[in-house]
Formats: sequence, structure tokens, C-alpha cells
Amino acid sequence: MAIVLFTDFGSGDLYVGQVKAVLAQHAPGTEVIDLLHDVPAYRVRAGAHLLDALKDSFPVGSVFLAVVDPGVGSEREALILEADGRHYVGPDNGLLSVIAARAAERRWWRILWRPHALSGSFHGRDLFAPVAALLASGKLMNDERAEIAAPATELGVGDAAEIIFVDHYGNACTGLRAGRAPRDAILVARGSRLSYARVFSEAPPGVCFWYQNSYGLVEIAVNLGSAAQLLGLSIGDAVNWSV
Amino acid sequence: MAIVLFTDFGSGDLYVGQVKAVLAQHAPGTEVIDLLHDVPAYRVRAGAHLLDALKDSFPVGSVFLAVVDPGVGSEREALILEADGRHYVGPDNGLLSVIAARAAERRWWRILWRPHALSGSFHGRDLFAPVAALLASGKLMNDERAEIAAPATELGVGDAAEIIFVDHYGNACTGLRAGRAPRDAILVARGSRLSYARVFSEAPPGVCFWYQNSYGLVEIAVNLGSAAQLLGLSIGDAVNWSV
Amino acid sequence: MAIVLFTDFGSGDLYVGQVKAVLAQHAPGTEVIDLLHDVPAYRVRAGAHLLDALKDSFPVGSVFLAVVDPGVGSEREALILEADGRHYVGPDNGLLSVIAARAAERRWWRILWRPHALSGSFHGRDLFAPVAALLASGKLMNDERAEIAAPATELGVGDAAEIIFVDHYGNACTGLRAGRAPRDAILVARGSRLSYARVFSEAPPGVCFWYQNSYGLVEIAVNLGSAAQLLGLSIGDAVNWSV
Repeated sequence: MAIVLFTDFGSGDLYVGQVKAVLAQHAPGTEVIDLLHDVPAYRVRAGAHLLDALKDSFPVGSVFLAVVDPGVGSEREALILEADGRHYVGPDNGLLSVIAARAAERRWWRILWRPHALSGSFHGRDLFAPVAALLASGKLMNDERAEIAAPATELGVGDAAEIIFVDHYGNACTGLRAGRAPRDAILVARGSRLSYARVFSEAPPGVCFWYQNSYGLVEIAVNLGSAAQLLGLSIGDAVNWSV
Repeated sequence: MAIVLFTDFGSGDLYVGQVKAVLAQHAPGTEVIDLLHDVPAYRVRAGAHLLDALKDSFPVGSVFLAVVDPGVGSEREALILEADGRHYVGPDNGLLSVIAARAAERRWWRILWRPHALSGSFHGRDLFAPVAALLASGKLMNDERAEIAAPATELGVGDAAEIIFVDHYGNACTGLRAGRAPRDAILVARGSRLSYARVFSEAPPGVCFWYQNSYGLVEIAVNLGSAAQLLGLSIGDAVNWSV
Repeated sequence: MAIVLFTDFGSGDLYVGQVKAVLAQHAPGTEVIDLLHDVPAYRVRAGAHLLDALKDSFPVGSVFLAVVDPGVGSEREALILEADGRHYVGPDNGLLSVIAARAAERRWWRILWRPHALSGSFHGRDLFAPVAALLASGKLMNDERAEIAAPATELGVGDAAEIIFVDHYGNACTGLRAGRAPRDAILVARGSRLSYARVFSEAPPGVCFWYQNSYGLVEIAVNLGSAAQLLGLSIGDAVNWSV
């Protein structure tokens, strides 16, 4: 079963390679897939909604190493979540909680396993990665985790009515699930009113629109251009449906 | 045989991981090599000339997943090209046509295979990736593609006399093949006249020059600096040989 | 045994994929880990101190392909270093010399192996990668390298009292080893005086501090912000302990 990485460690930075060294040591031969390392830095809420939308691209049985962890080194706990057949390893700060809230079945564990040496700033490498590797290879012992009823931090089940990701084309993804939005709805972002388009090529040139992106969320885009730049959109900016 | 990825999906973005999940599902155990995910966004012509120059680094038998696809969701076809022993999967927009035009042997197919669900904006994941995986593992059925004489869009066999890539050092690569250029030729770019240097260390400090880059194209560079910045060069800027 | 890549080739650029094609050809099936491809461009001294600090994340037996090579195409030699059970392949410009100077045991070889074709600008692909692959798979012949007493360029054993890396969060890593610094020491950078904090969450909001980073170096940071931006820090800026 693959280990899927979802972090804010930076795709060009020096953290992911250290994580992979740990995975190779604790789960040699296991496939590792980089889903995203450029989750907006420190943005737990954005990460929680993104991961919930993206998880379905990966088969049941996958183990996700999910780390957006501004509280690293504080007293926040380390968690394992099992939800609808997938496992997730990450900090207790809400990052895994949207998936759990929406799942048909969920179980939570506090991680008791500890490494020989634990840095103050890189639990992704020292704690979460080895636990994900042990889990993926069926070697995490029962006494190395303790089942709990719920985590300390939960973000709730509702959509995030805000920008949660801006891709390198300049498309601005919201935390709104598109399946629930009628196609004649008007989305408002930074004062602009945006209509629906099914595909990019259907929209008039230069006109921003909203559409259902490839992982099911409402996204703001413009054909052959950067909607984020045109509308001045940033992570965390509120969006809403016009009434 | 390896699957080689060549896209404008962004190396730090959330698209490549989804593609790899699909490849792992349809061709488990097959090696996947990321050649480039930062092809200039939407720049089909630049991508076509880059891929032609870079393909030779990979052995005969390789399967290239090549996606620069501004027309995704429109009526453009999906293609397979076999050229001189390598396979290429991508959109019918000219991206594969430079390779085909210069190959000794070529065959084209229209892709008939379709997924259960096809998004409007991510055929790289939903269509091209599974087809590349099936092809690489010898599982694409004969009735899942139909041979055609030629694609709808062809860019021709000639060189691209323009900037097609700027690397992170600031070197500006053109679509001119260097093997054809006499070493005393003067290259003109944005009004600057550039002489040849064999290697970086031979050029005087601060002076921009042209050289044959490691994949056979004419590239504009300066020792220990950014030629693109010094000369104000961008993707698509014309270059020409002085007469 | 894994091959570990440490270069300034750019994580989003078109060089790493070409290197991986070579590794796959010469050492099929060998695990390859990308440690860092965004070493500050051309910064040999920064790279030398970074690699020394990061190498310990990888097991004895690993083969490092280490290339920061502004002198590519000049007369500088190509080297293999064996130090404390790990191998390193790279240019003779000081990049490997900090590791060697601090190792308990070291051996140096000049690389005699040559490829059929050697480009003037990409020895990472044409020379260092195949040698690393041959080394990792035990196929480098004795007459393809010649043992030497020492390389031409050595940077010495001492710490680098300067900024050697800025990560994507804006944390500025120095070349000072933190194990040697008393916790009440004041670090001076660009005129700012910085106190120690054990973990990010212990520091007052908005106040820059120094701490021992996860790979043992003194690093300048601020909780939930960019210290590099706040203090105006760049690669190569001097730092010192206040007396």
C-alpha cells in the first residue's frame, strides 16, 4: 500500500528528502507518492479541506502522512485516523478532522510510539514519518497507539467559504464542494460576481468564472490567464454565493 | 519500460501526485520519471520543441506522457504517437508534432479508450495517464485506438526561432538546433548581439553569449548570472542569426 | 543502497529528470532520493556546509551525487570521496571537503571513467551520475578511479559564520553548528541581536530568535512568519556571536 505525502514542507525545500530517508528505512520497498508539499504554509484549515477533496484519488488502504504543523514542539498530540478504509497520520490541530467529520466510519488513536531522538521542529521526519511507515508495513504495535473517542481540535463538517489554494496557473480553489451548487448560482469573491462555466474553453476570453474543478471543489479561473492575479485573490479570502 | 512525464502541471502543484496515483493503479511497479512539469504554462509550441530536444535522453521503448493542453475540455482529440521506437501520449494540438515531423518513422493513433468519469479540466489524470499506463504495460487493446494518417494540428519540421524555456539559473533556451549553427554566427536577441562560447568558463565575466546546451539547442547564458534578466528575455521572444 | 541527490539543478527545472534517466540506465532498480535540488545556485561553500549537516539523515552505505559546479567545463577534476562509510561523487571545488575534513576516516579518488560523449555544461548528467550509479551497483572498476591524497580545493574544517540556506518558510540557516553554542549566547545578524528559543511556540510572536534546527545547525526564525524577510537576510550574509 502506498504512503501518500501531503505537507507544507515545500516541494523545492530540504525537508521532503529527509522524510523519504526515514520512510525508506522503516518501510523499504513501499511506494511513496508526493501528493502536495506546497500546502499554504501553516494553513491548517486550508490543508484540511484540500486533503478531504484530494484523498479520493488514492485507493482504500493508502496511508497518508499529513503534516501542516505550526504547533510543532508544543503539547499538541500526534494522531492516527482511520476513515473509510484509509489511514492518516498527523498532528492534532484539525488537519484530519474534516475528513473524519464527513466519513461514514472513523476511528482515532493517539500515537504513543516515540523515536530515540525527537527534534523540536521536525516531527514530520522524527515522529509522523516513522509511524506512517510502520503502519503501512503492518509493524505498528498495539501498545504504540491508544484509541480515543475524538481529537482535541475539530474544524467541523461544513464547507470552507474561502480560498484554500491557488495553483501555479493562478486558478483559485475554494473550500466549497461543487456538487451542492446550482449551476446558475453567482459566486462573489472580492466584490466580483462570477458565473458558472463547464469548461475553460466555454468561457469568454478574459472573463473570470467558477467551475467544478477536477477534485470536486468550486474554483475560480479565467481562460489562459491568472484569476488570482486579476481578482487579487489570496489564501483565506472569503467567498460566498450571491442571494 | 519507464513512463516519462512532461507537462505544465507545475512541479510544486497538486496535479502530478494525482497523475501518479493513476499510473500506480494501472501500471503498478512501472518506473516513472519526472522529466519536466514546468513547461511554460499553455505554451504548446515551446513544449513541442523542448520535448523533441529532450526525448533522446530516454531509451527507445520509453512511453512519454506529454500534456500541455490549454484546449482541455474542447473537441480536440487525444493521440498516441510512435516515433523511432518511443511512444508519446498527449493532446492533438501540435505538442507531439515536431517529434513526428523529424522522425524517420512515425505512426499516429486516435485514442478511443475512455474512463468511467472524465473531468472537464484534467484529462492528464483521467485520460492520458491511464492510456500511458496501459500502453507501458502492454494492456492497451487494439480496439481502444484507431490509426490515423496525421493529426489535426502540426507545427512543421522547422526550428523555433524564439525563447522556449528559461531555466532557474536564468539561461534562456531557444528552439534553434545548435548543430546547424556555425560557431562564428552572431545571435540577435532583444537587440543584443551574442557571440559563441564553448563553455561558461570561457566567456568573459558579465558578457552574455550563446552556446550549444546539453540537449543540443542554442542557449543564451552568462557566467554566474542570469542572461534572461540581463537581456530582459521572456518565453516567445524572437531570436535570429545576424546576416 | 540508495543514491541521494544534492544539487543546485532546481527542483522544477529540466535537469533532474535527465539525471534520473542516466541513473535508471546504469543502476536499474536502485532507490533514488532527492535530498535537495535547490542548493543556492553556484554557492559551493553553502552547499558544502549544508551537505555535511544533512548527510547524517542517510544510512552508512549511501552514495551521494553532489553537484554544485560553477566551474563545469573547466579543468577542475571529478572526485569520489569515501568518508565514514558513505560515498560522495562530485566536482573538485570544495563541495565535498567539509565532510572530509570532519570525518574520522576519509579516502579520495580522482575519477578516470569517461562517457562516450561529455557535454560542456552538464557533467552532472554525463559524468557524475553514471559514476554514482556504477559505484552504487558495485560496477566501478579499479582502473576507473585513481586514489589521491587530497583534492585541489579544500574549505577547511571550521564552521561557516554566514547564512547558507533560506527555506520556503523564511527560516535562515547558518553554517554554525548549534551543539557548540551556549543557550545564552546572542547571535548577531544584519545588526539584529537574537536570543535562543528551544521551539517556535516558546518565542514571543513577531520576535526573531535562533534555535538548533532539525539537522543541527543554528537557524534564525520567527513564529508563523519569515525571519529572512523581517531581517533582510540573504545567502552569504555574515553572522556572529556577540561577545
